[in-house]
Amino acid sequence: MRIVLGVQYCGSAFEGWQTQPHGKTVQDHLTQAIAHIAGHAPVLYCAGRTDTGVHARQQVVHFDTLVQRPLNAWIKGVNNFLPDSIVVTGAAEVDESFHARFSALSRTYRYYFYSSSNRDPFKPFMTWVHHSLDLEKMRQACTYLLGTHDFSAFRASQCQAASPVRTLSVMELKEAHGETWFEIQGNAFLHHMVRNMVGTLMEVGLNRQPVEWVQEVLRSCNRSVAAKTWPAQGLSLWQVDYPVSFEIPQLFRNRLSDTHVPLNRLGA
Amino acid sequence: MRIVLGVQYCGSAFEGWQTQPHGKTVQDHLTQAIAHIAGHAPVLYCAGRTDTGVHARQQVVHFDTLVQRPLNAWIKGVNNFLPDSIVVTGAAEVDESFHARFSALSRTYRYYFYSSSNRDPFKPFMTWVHHSLDLEKMRQACTYLLGTHDFSAFRASQCQAASPVRTLSVMELKEAHGETWFEIQGNAFLHHMVRNMVGTLMEVGLNRQPVEWVQEVLRSCNRSVAAKTWPAQGLSLWQVDYPVSFEIPQLFRNRLSDTHVPLNRLGA
Repeated sequence: MRIVLGVQYCGSAFEGWQTQPHGKTVQDHLTQAIAHIAGHAPVLYCAGRTDTGVHARQQVVHFDTLVQRPLNAWIKGVNNFLPDSIVVTGAAEVDESFHARFSALSRTYRYYFYSSSNRDPFKPFMTWVHHSLDLEKMRQACTYLLGTHDFSAFRASQCQAASPVRTLSVMELKEAHGETWFEIQGNAFLHHMVRNMVGTLMEVGLNRQPVEWVQEVLRSCNRSVAAKTWPAQGLSLWQVDYPVSFEIPQLFRNRLSDTHVPLNRLGA
Repeated sequence: MRIVLGVQYCGSAFEGWQTQPHGKTVQDHLTQAIAHIAGHAPVLYCAGRTDTGVHARQQVVHFDTLVQRPLNAWIKGVNNFLPDSIVVTGAAEVDESFHARFSALSRTYRYYFYSSSNRDPFKPFMTWVHHSLDLEKMRQACTYLLGTHDFSAFRASQCQAASPVRTLSVMELKEAHGETWFEIQGNAFLHHMVRNMVGTLMEVGLNRQPVEWVQEVLRSCNRSVAAKTWPAQGLSLWQVDYPVSFEIPQLFRNRLSDTHVPLNRLGA
């Protein structure tokens, strides 16, 4: 049978999602924890393979198993064998037509940042920007990236995707509750694409480049024209959308509110 | 001359404030960072020597030096040599009548916790409570601890204080912005006193002990009667008050708002 899990993790302690020989990845920890319950090491598939340091507020993972366990064993049982910074929030049995990666209709990422003269040790899920930013210019520059484009200019050299064409349905700079973030929804993403786009938009915000430069970078299809990759600290896989019939939001129902919520602050 | 610093840190990565031979403490990191700027390793004094894992939203530190540096060197210069989870927020020259520890009139700690069936990896500054809690009973029990008492029942065996008598001027369970915490202000604190009091109040909240039991524990003056020490994760040194003439709040002016603010949440 096929089991689907809702998973959240703080990425700081892990070298990304994807399994590595050193075993310090989210997939390695989760595989081992599930093996304690299932009696075998399952092959895991996830909605979005996050990089080193990237967080996941809503990661969706599936695996196949022949063993029968109460659903709560896949939640609380597995959680007992996970480090504190990874948690299974829900589990369900799904039809084998479901695939965590290929059934996903879209992924939403958020990139949180704060602009301040000093670092804030209580913002572990935001990137610190030392200088002040022109948010209005960044907001204008975002619009160039919206829609269907060849995103080669924002693609890491090690990217293995067959095509560099992606469609962004949301590319916005948002502000609420004293926090600022990019909200980016797309059908799928190239390797480092979000962090490379953020780096390029920051050049505009820092007044090092004009707003129109973002369009030039996009059209160049040349990675060396764009800005550097921005830090993973502020990036979170925020939400993954599937056909409603799979009822994936139920896996996170005890955890996620509908509202934009404040982040990691201690006396900000 | 005497220099006073405002310091914030996330305690998770450090073995407390106080210097240790292995060098993994906040004092060790700060001493080395200041030495880079001063050219000598200063002797540091702090307002409250936090334990392993305890955070500080407002730690006050002073040291004496003969070298003359612009104030910003003690802030940005020192920050350049600190890990990301420690930050100097402000610096000032003070009269030698000031002492970070002995001039303090009171310390305020906060202990944040959340009650949920699963851990939340995005609440690194709160303690997870697996069961639901009767907050009203905990609130009642708090009142027994208010005032001047012999707090031996909540004193760690390794505590070196001359007297077990302390005065608590605030001992409250607070709720705001969907968050819950103990707010505890006292003239000074014994070793592990806050975490031992929290553990004892939790026994009441979990309905394992009646409200009045907290008074019995206090009167027993016997550490073995009280509950276990609660985790450091939820504890923060929140504020230290000094005579106003020292203008200590100025050291944190760019960082702290007057309002209660939300904590470390990612999609709570």
